[in-house]
Amino acid sequence: MATLKDIGISAAINLSSAFMFLLAFAVLRLQPFNDRVYFPKWYLKGIRGSPTNSRSAVKKFVNLDTGTYIRFLNWMPAALHMPEPELIDHAGLDSTVFIRIYFLGVKIFAPITLLAFMVLVPINWTGKTLEAPAAKDLTFSDIDKLSISNVPLGSKRFWAHIGMSYVFSAWTCYSLYKEYMIIATMRLRFLASERRRPDQFTVLVRNVPPDMDESVSEHIEHFFCVNHPDHYLMHHVVYNANTLASIVAKKTNLKNWYVYYHNKYERDPSKRPTTRTGMMGLLGAKVDAIDYYTGLIDKLSEEEAKERENVMNDPNAIMPAAFVSFRTRWGAAVCAQTQQTSDPTVWLTEWAPEPRDIFWENLAIPYFDLNLRRLITTVSMFFLTFFFMIPIAFVQSLANIEAIEKVFPFLKSIIEKESVKSVIQGFLPGLALKIFLIMLPKLIWAMSKMEGYTSFSSLERRSASKYYLFVLVNVFLGSIVTGTAFQQLELLINQPSSEFTKTVGSTIPMKATFFITYIMIDGWAGIAGEIIRIASLITFHIKNTFLVKTDQDRENAMDPGSLDFATSEPRIQLYFMLGHVYAPVTPLLLPFIVVFFAFSYMVYRHQIINVYNQQYESGATFWPDVHRRVIIGLIISQILLMGLLSTRGANKSTLLLIAQPVLTIWFHRYCKGRFESAFVKFPLEDAMVKDTLERAVEPTLNLRLYLQDAYVHPVFKGGNFGKAAIIDDEEENPLIQTKRACRSSKPESDNEGASTGSC
Amino acid sequence: MATLKDIGISAAINLSSAFMFLLAFAVLRLQPFNDRVYFPKWYLKGIRGSPTNSRSAVKKFVNLDTGTYIRFLNWMPAALHMPEPELIDHAGLDSTVFIRIYFLGVKIFAPITLLAFMVLVPINWTGKTLEAPAAKDLTFSDIDKLSISNVPLGSKRFWAHIGMSYVFSAWTCYSLYKEYMIIATMRLRFLASERRRPDQFTVLVRNVPPDMDESVSEHIEHFFCVNHPDHYLMHHVVYNANTLASIVAKKTNLKNWYVYYHNKYERDPSKRPTTRTGMMGLLGAKVDAIDYYTGLIDKLSEEEAKERENVMNDPNAIMPAAFVSFRTRWGAAVCAQTQQTSDPTVWLTEWAPEPRDIFWENLAIPYFDLNLRRLITTVSMFFLTFFFMIPIAFVQSLANIEAIEKVFPFLKSIIEKESVKSVIQGFLPGLALKIFLIMLPKLIWAMSKMEGYTSFSSLERRSASKYYLFVLVNVFLGSIVTGTAFQQLELLINQPSSEFTKTVGSTIPMKATFFITYIMIDGWAGIAGEIIRIASLITFHIKNTFLVKTDQDRENAMDPGSLDFATSEPRIQLYFMLGHVYAPVTPLLLPFIVVFFAFSYMVYRHQIINVYNQQYESGATFWPDVHRRVIIGLIISQILLMGLLSTRGANKSTLLLIAQPVLTIWFHRYCKGRFESAFVKFPLEDAMVKDTLERAVEPTLNLRLYLQDAYVHPVFKGGNFGKAAIIDDEEENPLIQTKRACRSSKPESDNEGASTGSC
Repeated sequence: MATLKDIGISAAINLSSAFMFLLAFAVLRLQPFNDRVYFPKWYLKGIRGSPTNSRSAVKKFVNLDTGTYIRFLNWMPAALHMPEPELIDHAGLDSTVFIRIYFLGVKIFAPITLLAFMVLVPINWTGKTLEAPAAKDLTFSDIDKLSISNVPLGSKRFWAHIGMSYVFSAWTCYSLYKEYMIIATMRLRFLASERRRPDQFTVLVRNVPPDMDESVSEHIEHFFCVNHPDHYLMHHVVYNANTLASIVAKKTNLKNWYVYYHNKYERDPSKRPTTRTGMMGLLGAKVDAIDYYTGLIDKLSEEEAKERENVMNDPNAIMPAAFVSFRTRWGAAVCAQTQQTSDPTVWLTEWAPEPRDIFWENLAIPYFDLNLRRLITTVSMFFLTFFFMIPIAFVQSLANIEAIEKVFPFLKSIIEKESVKSVIQGFLPGLALKIFLIMLPKLIWAMSKMEGYTSFSSLERRSASKYYLFVLVNVFLGSIVTGTAFQQLELLINQPSSEFTKTVGSTIPMKATFFITYIMIDGWAGIAGEIIRIASLITFHIKNTFLVKTDQDRENAMDPGSLDFATSEPRIQLYFMLGHVYAPVTPLLLPFIVVFFAFSYMVYRHQIINVYNQQYESGATFWPDVHRRVIIGLIISQILLMGLLSTRGANKSTLLLIAQPVLTIWFHRYCKGRFESAFVKFPLEDAMVKDTLERAVEPTLNLRLYLQDAYVHPVFKGGNFGKAAIIDDEEENPLIQTKRACRSSKPESDNEGASTGSC
Repeated sequence: MATLKDIGISAAINLSSAFMFLLAFAVLRLQPFNDRVYFPKWYLKGIRGSPTNSRSAVKKFVNLDTGTYIRFLNWMPAALHMPEPELIDHAGLDSTVFIRIYFLGVKIFAPITLLAFMVLVPINWTGKTLEAPAAKDLTFSDIDKLSISNVPLGSKRFWAHIGMSYVFSAWTCYSLYKEYMIIATMRLRFLASERRRPDQFTVLVRNVPPDMDESVSEHIEHFFCVNHPDHYLMHHVVYNANTLASIVAKKTNLKNWYVYYHNKYERDPSKRPTTRTGMMGLLGAKVDAIDYYTGLIDKLSEEEAKERENVMNDPNAIMPAAFVSFRTRWGAAVCAQTQQTSDPTVWLTEWAPEPRDIFWENLAIPYFDLNLRRLITTVSMFFLTFFFMIPIAFVQSLANIEAIEKVFPFLKSIIEKESVKSVIQGFLPGLALKIFLIMLPKLIWAMSKMEGYTSFSSLERRSASKYYLFVLVNVFLGSIVTGTAFQQLELLINQPSSEFTKTVGSTIPMKATFFITYIMIDGWAGIAGEIIRIASLITFHIKNTFLVKTDQDRENAMDPGSLDFATSEPRIQLYFMLGHVYAPVTPLLLPFIVVFFAFSYMVYRHQIINVYNQQYESGATFWPDVHRRVIIGLIISQILLMGLLSTRGANKSTLLLIAQPVLTIWFHRYCKGRFESAFVKFPLEDAMVKDTLERAVEPTLNLRLYLQDAYVHPVFKGGNFGKAAIIDDEEENPLIQTKRACRSSKPESDNEGASTGSC
């Protein structure tokens, strides 16, 4: 077991590596030629111009002002400087709320740390069990002296731990409640202050039932004209443009290659660049590269035109889904929240995601498929979590010397060399696991996609749930109870449930040093590594060298990245859980957690201000998930504490802890009822207020014109395709009444100005 | 262990007792003076007149037509004769669907019985384990020979049981799916064909936030005028009339006594009847009864008038809840399904229950209280289920000879007598348990009331859930694993979960004979006892002798009763579970189940046609609960089968059974998504169809007048009180436009005819 000294050494190593990362960052970010890597957000906002335009040749690339190097940590106060409202405006609510998770960690654990050090550490320290003569043969360290292990069996001192556990839980719940309230308010204020956005008026309708006599578009129009006569405005049907989108993507890729060779030729006009037609330009016949790519691009352009034609004219390309827009936000809110027909599997309505948040591929999955897909995903997620070691072990068993020699006999002479052999034996098995762990988020993302969610934000939220399960089982439980998740599962089934919590609970104090090291490596050094963005740095400079011709190209070469909610959030949750589990057991771990949260908060605040560019804005819809997972961690910690204490001869007092999870679950339910609807529902009052205001401010607004292009598939954007679906007299001449008859043709005082009475 | 012969004897006893009940019923129901006990429904419908009016003196009371006695079972075909649509019309959808639960039992278990007898019984019978020399010392019976116990350990024959288990589950799910679909269709057709009802237009609004400047009524009016401008019609605020209601109830009781003494006096005018003023007329001074009750009634009438005054004028008597009515069903459907403001704890809207279904007491519970009440109820339900034996054991320990002698020393001489002693010792402990079990439904009902549900139908549904939990734990598991629920809980915690299912699973075959006997006593004889309605018979004749003066009184003396969903449904579920648990294990139990379901179906069909009078109509809202509980029973049976088989040396094949509960849960989720919304939501399309139809048929309907009295507390009904809250110009003169200004005063083509533009 590690002593305090070991931990000190580990801390020194990790601190210095973190420090080196920070130093490297400080140097790199000050170099003008890295400016687009470390401040892309400002370029995207159009606030920062290229520094290369205005300075001397050297200064264009290297910063020679030594003063700036001395104040190399001054990004930290700068990051904290921007006030929150401005931050919301600058980076969006999603990002702002995301970094508040780190801040919540500080708010929860700083007071808990203080209290634990004031109350529990003295109690543990004076417990003296580990110094007693009977314990002489046990190995123990100074850390254990500060932990609950030092309290004698059946001691009355455990009352302090039980009491503190209640205090910690109460404080956590209080902080969570406050935070939930703040974020709900922020969200509501954000939604209320938002400018007009297409999704405020629009509802996504899925599973439009087939109709014998009408096209999908007509069917939708008639249905909503009948059932929402005063509110329906227009709709966009969804086209199955997946093939077209893949052609367009392929074309972009080819264009990149064309530009690459073109640049090469321009730099050295004496020699036409060549390429090979085979696999990745490595095999096959040698051809002139520029001509080759021009040919390919032309061919694809033709294909694209044909496919466009196809999609527009083939009735099968129209999916039974549509974006239906309403005259008022009130009408949209009503449609999104109500059931349309007595069959709940057709005419499914939900609030439309904002246009850039839509995941187009999934818009046409029928109801039964959706159910089946969810079953399959759930089952495969279960197997992924508990049995993922099996295929990896299989791959590892293949990747040994003998197997390779058998399959590739010609490699025998190389492999037999001692140095190569040791690399293969020592490295390959680890590599298989590492590759799996790198692939894991992609795998989970693919599974979420399979489930059929229709927006990126919901896909991210679902992926985060899955990743959390994986981290909980394989990282947290896997580290405490040594063995694979499958073995734990076996243990759970074959042991009494009280025994299982006891087993897990009693191992907790022993694993404290491991987790302290883990926090320093994964948390401290990992976060410091995040800030220098090594991958983006390299990619940018490669692209900049080979592809960039114009400023527009340079813009495209920037990869600002974004907060990866699906993997970052579950990692934060792990720290929350560690904090809660160890707070009453080994308080020494707490300062490391607090430092992690505070440092991460600073780093990510800097990143969202200067780097990340969110792809969509969901208005912090993810908060209920975050809240729920903190609560899950809290409940797990409470149960494990019960298991631990019951092995320490404090059986009766342990009974007192049973109320804790019950109360916590109740608290969760209360919060859910109190706040969750702010994240999933759309109050009519707020919609009405915005409608009324808008009607007063802009009485002549032509909403139809405003929404015309909003929900068109990105590959059709800019073309005249989108209009074909919604073409209408009013668009051309908004003052002419349409010919279509309507049930009630009463004069209206609507916000739509002249283009009234469309149905 | 019981042999086939024992079971035969038990069956004979129970069959003959059931037969005697039926015989008694056949005789009693044919007597004209019992007519109101056995056919009250027809009297309530006004179709059947008193037989006492038209016949000779003797025939008035006794049926002398011997022919009718011979055909004493002819009520059975008569009960099955009425076609279902007519039954819905006659008895309501709730009752019709309720008896379909029994029929569902027949539909599920009749084919399963057939299949089990064809496949499993031969397989078990030829297993020969119990006849093997090694098993000679084991006691076994012929029943066990037919059960899974007769199959040798680790035999391949278990594959048949596993396969059959899948077949049974699949058939059950298929039947459940079909039934869910049929009942959803029935409900939708029922709702669509319903006449105009106040609840179609009305929404219950709870937790109206307090307002400084306005009264509750004004606040509600303004809120809905702003947020539902085109649809809002009117509202009724809810008064806290609980005190008034209790005064009225007290007065009715006193009036009964007055009538009793008055009748007594009329029969024998020579003697004024007397009563005592003390406890229940047993103690205190003797007074003239008629004068005494006249005085009391007068006093109460005064109190009532005062209280009425109070409620009408005291602003504190107005609760922050209201019934808000809309111009159209569409408007009401929208309001009931949407969230009104950004704070989800105020302005809570839900579809209003129909007026006679409202549970008035619970209308004013604030949001936080509601949460707290649910927590408390959940915890107390847990203790009630698992620890109810503790207080009973305590009472039982008090109720022994020594304790009684100590407290009441003067009783010593009586108690010491041998006969009295044996009664006390043998009878009192059982009595304590019996009293508890009789009180249980009341207790559960009180707990559901505590939870704050606002309609009788939801209270019944909640009570049924609680009662089901109790039956599941204490009757089903309690009979299988001998011991109290608390001991089972201990077992569950301290044993591995796989061990627990094994323990329970392996005991199952041994308990088959017990459950067969249970089915015959509780099921067969119990249902036969239901039909003679012994309690109602006695009560009616007592009331008829002492209280009835007029025909109206006789009408009131009838107690048609109603289906008690809260206790009957969980009992049915027990039979479903028994059937599923024993289908693959001891198929011999199945015929008993099938007979129970078929017989019950007949009896209850007769009862709902001739006797029961439902207090409200919820349109079969309870079906999702029924469905869910059948599924729960099915899953429990699947898990127990796994436990059982794993003790029989069929470990590997048992693994195949794991998929079963997963698939069943998925099936449940699919059904939930597919059908449940038909029971909880209100599709806009259907509302629109009904609105349009009504507008066409009755263009001049004055909806305001129609709804005027609908949602007034029953104690105010008939008075002019209700109007005070909604008084309005239009009511007096529906042709005059109101004075209140409205945002849009466009000419309307509404269904309200002349009384337009009220806000």
